[in-house]
Amino acid sequence: MIKTALTIEYDGAPYYGFQLQKERNTVQAELEKALAVVLRERVRVYCAGRTDTGVNALGQVVHFAADYRQSIAELVYSLNSLLPKDIAIRHAAHVPENFHARFSCLGREYVYIICNAAYRPGNLGFKSLWIRGDLDWSPVRAAIPHLVGEKNFASFTKAALVKSGERTIRRIDGIDIIQSDPYVFIYVRGSGFLHNMIRILTGTLLDIARGKTAPDAVSEIVRNADRISAGVTQKPDALYFLHAEYADYPQQDVMHWLRRLLLPLIDRSN
Amino acid sequence: MIKTALTIEYDGAPYYGFQLQKERNTVQAELEKALAVVLRERVRVYCAGRTDTGVNALGQVVHFAADYRQSIAELVYSLNSLLPKDIAIRHAAHVPENFHARFSCLGREYVYIICNAAYRPGNLGFKSLWIRGDLDWSPVRAAIPHLVGEKNFASFTKAALVKSGERTIRRIDGIDIIQSDPYVFIYVRGSGFLHNMIRILTGTLLDIARGKTAPDAVSEIVRNADRISAGVTQKPDALYFLHAEYADYPQQDVMHWLRRLLLPLIDRSN
Repeated sequence: MIKTALTIEYDGAPYYGFQLQKERNTVQAELEKALAVVLRERVRVYCAGRTDTGVNALGQVVHFAADYRQSIAELVYSLNSLLPKDIAIRHAAHVPENFHARFSCLGREYVYIICNAAYRPGNLGFKSLWIRGDLDWSPVRAAIPHLVGEKNFASFTKAALVKSGERTIRRIDGIDIIQSDPYVFIYVRGSGFLHNMIRILTGTLLDIARGKTAPDAVSEIVRNADRISAGVTQKPDALYFLHAEYADYPQQDVMHWLRRLLLPLIDRSN
Repeated sequence: MIKTALTIEYDGAPYYGFQLQKERNTVQAELEKALAVVLRERVRVYCAGRTDTGVNALGQVVHFAADYRQSIAELVYSLNSLLPKDIAIRHAAHVPENFHARFSCLGREYVYIICNAAYRPGNLGFKSLWIRGDLDWSPVRAAIPHLVGEKNFASFTKAALVKSGERTIRRIDGIDIIQSDPYVFIYVRGSGFLHNMIRILTGTLLDIARGKTAPDAVSEIVRNADRISAGVTQKPDALYFLHAEYADYPQQDVMHWLRRLLLPLIDRSN
């Protein structure tokens, strides 16, 4: 059986997240439906990160195992013809037998897009969170070191998830605030993220940008390991799963243009 | 009476172009409807360029004359609350009494966005024309000098318009091909454009990029002054009215981020 990896772009708005759900449409359901038509058998797809309801992806990665006689380009072309317009496979490659979209992933990148302007944006280009008031990003940058590293991020996820006993230790490798007026991109990379984690993180950073929370308070928020300490969960449709990194599935040449645009700005941003 | 100019962003898909039409919804109709509510009187709006059905704008400029007691910021805020989501006023200023969005305009910029990739794009970000096959932009760059300057562009508009005796002389100040893989931006600036002109121009340049038309043939296409000589009219939803330039309505600080992104790439592009 051949293992195939796919890089996928999708608009999260019409879907109840990535993962299969009974009687609700999800990205995984659409992918498996299209694959069943093209491969004439039901196959399971596995993803790099299960995005929540309404969250978008520019570089989600999935894999599946199945034999097929078409070339990989023909396969993707057929799948893209069957998939709804808001889901698009942008890249594909054969990967080694032991590849797994979730377990082989070396790092994940997300970006939360804020439009900080007096007047609301239109609906062309990327969806964003519109904020009218002044935001000061220098205290936010001062707070970031308190969030980077391997930590217990229990404050940054649903209380129910913590109660259920799920492991809440994660590693954040970096958070960058990239300002390209009127947009502010909160770019987060790490080992993996808890349910709602980046949306709560964004809410917490916005409290700092508005002067409601001191930068130093963040280390206490983390230490409390308590959802109540952190900021409000921000809306999902301004969040984008940007990239998943693998040793044996290179995507350097096909990276999304938004990522190509943001990467050179990171060094200058802090 | 105060004259006010507005910079407007809109998604052209749901509208029958900018200009008022009987029994069909247009951007002008939506603007005048919102203004009537806020100002409690019917006012006429005048635009920099009447975009066709389906064509988008990131920097359309309109003006109207009316007295109002609100601050200009309050006015725009109210209008944006009333306007549909796909129309957004992004900037506003009082302008001199003799200002006219159409006649005071010093130059107009449009961009046509092509996604040149093996696989189709999703629907996040900007709408584009997807082209799978190889495109060679160097002969296109060789053809551009034949199009720049004040010329009779009768070949690049509807035959009916030429027959009607409308003046078909226009001045193109520059055409730049900006490649940012997988996107290609055809950036056109000039005095003004005929009905369908940029979409036919794009069709003609694509014939050159595909090797179907020689770069030198363009001067003949212009000379023929005959619609049949030029390329196929390309679809409207990948075309964006990017900017309108005025001496007395500065927008430097509020330019759309796509324009801010493209401008520095222009010098490097040819």
